Amino acid sequence: MNTRHIDVTELVLRDGHQSLMATRMALEDMLPACEDIDKAGYWSVECWGGATFDSCIRFLNEDPWERLRAFRKALPNSRLQMLLRGQNLLGYRHYEDTVVDRFVEKAAENGMDVFRVFDALNDIRNLRRAIQAVKRTGKHAQGTICYTISPLHTITGYVELAEQLLDLGCDSLCIKDMAALLKPAPAYQIVRAIKEACGEQVRVHVHVHATTGVTMVSLMKAIEAGADCVDTSISSLSLGPGHNPTESLVEMLEGTAYSTSLDKKRLLNIKRHFDKIRPRYQEFLSNITGVDTEIFDSQIPGGMISNMESQLRQQGAAHRIHEVLEEVPRVRKDAGYPPLVTPTSQIVGTQAVFNVMMGRYKVLTGEFADLMLGYYGATIGQRDPELIQLAARQAKKQAITCRPADLLKPEWEELRSAAIACKGCNGSDEDVLTYAMFPQVAPKFFSTRAEGPKNLGKDPAAAPAAAAAPAGDGKGPVLTKVIYDVTIGEKTHKVTVAPAS
Amino acid sequence: MNTRHIDVTELVLRDGHQSLMATRMALEDMLPACEDIDKAGYWSVECWGGATFDSCIRFLNEDPWERLRAFRKALPNSRLQMLLRGQNLLGYRHYEDTVVDRFVEKAAENGMDVFRVFDALNDIRNLRRAIQAVKRTGKHAQGTICYTISPLHTITGYVELAEQLLDLGCDSLCIKDMAALLKPAPAYQIVRAIKEACGEQVRVHVHVHATTGVTMVSLMKAIEAGADCVDTSISSLSLGPGHNPTESLVEMLEGTAYSTSLDKKRLLNIKRHFDKIRPRYQEFLSNITGVDTEIFDSQIPGGMISNMESQLRQQGAAHRIHEVLEEVPRVRKDAGYPPLVTPTSQIVGTQAVFNVMMGRYKVLTGEFADLMLGYYGATIGQRDPELIQLAARQAKKQAITCRPADLLKPEWEELRSAAIACKGCNGSDEDVLTYAMFPQVAPKFFSTRAEGPKNLGKDPAAAPAAAAAPAGDGKGPVLTKVIYDVTIGEKTHKVTVAPAS
Repeated sequence: MNTRHIDVTELVLRDGHQSLMATRMALEDMLPACEDIDKAGYWSVECWGGATFDSCIRFLNEDPWERLRAFRKALPNSRLQMLLRGQNLLGYRHYEDTVVDRFVEKAAENGMDVFRVFDALNDIRNLRRAIQAVKRTGKHAQGTICYTISPLHTITGYVELAEQLLDLGCDSLCIKDMAALLKPAPAYQIVRAIKEACGEQVRVHVHVHATTGVTMVSLMKAIEAGADCVDTSISSLSLGPGHNPTESLVEMLEGTAYSTSLDKKRLLNIKRHFDKIRPRYQEFLSNITGVDTEIFDSQIPGGMISNMESQLRQQGAAHRIHEVLEEVPRVRKDAGYPPLVTPTSQIVGTQAVFNVMMGRYKVLTGEFADLMLGYYGATIGQRDPELIQLAARQAKKQAITCRPADLLKPEWEELRSAAIACKGCNGSDEDVLTYAMFPQVAPKFFSTRAEGPKNLGKDPAAAPAAAAAPAGDGKGPVLTKVIYDVTIGEKTHKVTVAPAS
Repeated sequence: MNTRHIDVTELVLRDGHQSLMATRMALEDMLPACEDIDKAGYWSVECWGGATFDSCIRFLNEDPWERLRAFRKALPNSRLQMLLRGQNLLGYRHYEDTVVDRFVEKAAENGMDVFRVFDALNDIRNLRRAIQAVKRTGKHAQGTICYTISPLHTITGYVELAEQLLDLGCDSLCIKDMAALLKPAPAYQIVRAIKEACGEQVRVHVHVHATTGVTMVSLMKAIEAGADCVDTSISSLSLGPGHNPTESLVEMLEGTAYSTSLDKKRLLNIKRHFDKIRPRYQEFLSNITGVDTEIFDSQIPGGMISNMESQLRQQGAAHRIHEVLEEVPRVRKDAGYPPLVTPTSQIVGTQAVFNVMMGRYKVLTGEFADLMLGYYGATIGQRDPELIQLAARQAKKQAITCRPADLLKPEWEELRSAAIACKGCNGSDEDVLTYAMFPQVAPKFFSTRAEGPKNLGKDPAAAPAAAAAPAGDGKGPVLTKVIYDVTIGEKTHKVTVAPAS
């Protein structure tokens, strides 16, 4: 039987361990699998992104650029792929355009092949510069559509976004479903609609998580609709809040009109390797192994719920979680229906917590005010006009409609001076970029870098207590924590906000 | 949109906890969920079968007939469904026809509505009497096709079996995939072929396990091919060696041409209930939460592998598992390609262990000899003629080609006398049947029955050590253990055989 070839992106080196073991895997635990990964026949190997970069310098004392070069060497036949947050690059703020250019150049120079570029608000203006920068390097620019559900998100809207991304010169498109909300029917419809509107030759990649238990079927439907490449993670680091298992995808297609060219023997080797590695990171492992379909009704990703629960606990108000869960959809609507992914999930979730604890919109977080005022970009829906005024008054800023990065002044020289002033900074552009991404973490990393990588994995036999340890704060993918001082009248509250997974 | 209605059978009260917590759940932990289960809109509720019956009297000091009556009361609007091993009923041997009749009558009288009747060899002669008995009670007789893969198992063959089952008067058919081997393409093809050959009006049910990570897609494809009803288990007791989650099935169909009428609010209540119950059975929980696709190549179900490993360990030969794994397909071929499900999985697996440990077919187990001689029924493939002769010599029995139960003499009176002689037997037909099913266990149960049910669940907070307990012998669904004395020359080996899951 003649079958259509389906490409596969392996996620285990980035999103796989990010979703399942709080991004803690050390490079040395990945390298032994790289020969098999390199020869298994993947279309690409995702291995770099914001959280892995952050984790490298925050927890693992690993130079993320060195990690990239190591992957380049260990995976000579593979396309290396990264996830890039558009104008935010790998950080949590907008960067001035020349920083974006420099980052992309350096990533390409160090070995990156495929740049998956996304923006949490699907604001094309936040994607443009990064995509153009990738195009200039001659590397593969993949334009991303963040999938979400709201009264305003339509198939037509996604197709329009696809067209805009292709107009920017994207080499392929990705439908990115971080919250596992993409059901089989819309998966089919979106892929088909894009192919029909933009041409069958347009490459469409599909990225889904497994959380809700339906997305393996969504991958099947996306493939039937013409998807060219799907993302999976090797089975020993799959499922739960992670992804569908690579081997299951291969088997699923047997006997159908589609096939992968993945080498099952190699996959088995890769699986067995990470089967051995996984228990070493017991203390960081997600304790979610089943599915969660409540997300479909609440529209609130699981990682976001545990985050809000932790905020409430710190206020001694854990019992108010149900009020907060009911508040989230209202806040999201007021904010113009942003997709709930990093950073919007934290911004909306924290504001919902504030609304329940202190009265609705009695206090706005700085981030929520910025979101309302357009400083993250445009939202698909109209933002509540009264709230915009309130935000402007509180933040003492004007609402903007321009591209947020247009307001930024050239900052490279300033970043460079600040980086070089750090003990241990080697003066390279890479170090300046590391500093630019995480200015609070980079100085410490530079100063300890010479000590070499710190592997957080533990021999599971040597640490049996870890298995029984309760789900703690260190467990979730809490990579960036911000502590707010919120003052109402004369009372100041400490509120900690950390990214949901 | 007009959608075709898909019926759902909820498995949590039988196969769900059988597959995930070694069948240990006590009735009292199920009853609080029954109102929601009863009103959720299921087509049927599977709640009784061989392992649950066995577990009731062996571990839980619960009268399985009393459990059935309790379900009847707690689920007044639901079809109660059971799994019946054809001429084996709920035991591990063939029963004489009038015992079969009596069992079915009593099950119906106590509240059973739907009898799913199967035979491990798909030998229609082993199904006939039970199906006729069900028909006589006026209840729903569901004829079952055990799905497996071999060079001899074909779509055409399954369709012929379907036709034979319908000729017996079956009200519906079930495709039963215990090992999660049913991929999407054959799932579609088999259902479609049956519908086309037997008529679109013939009800087809599909039962799959989740083990390999592909069967949610197989359910989708079976539905597209016309399947009328699919089996799932509520999410909090799903996945791993269990089943696909009920809630995910509901969500998967949204926006497609199919829909269930399940009440999502009720499903959430059921989920939350078993979410609370699950940790109480920590020590029995399957430690498999991911997927296993190696089954596709080895054709050996996971439960069977752990069983063979345990046998080898007892012989101090754990390191020879790979030889055994390679031996299994040969033994299966020699035995005429039986599906590997209880009891054939144990028979073939143990023989493979013997072959590796003592030389190929140097010693045959009594069960393997019986299989070769036709005492379990007919196999799809020819059995090795030399091995049949060897089996006849060793077992001092002739090969048979008739229906095995034809050789049995009426046994009811004898069973009745033996049962009544037991202390605590109440003299009812139900007690006689309990004795008939498990003559080694029933006497003890009768004698302790008055003490009332024993709930093996433990407060997880009170027993933190359980969480860290290593996977032990008590963990797998080892419900019937047989110890063989195998004598070669003058040396006697003790070999323990227990059912794979």
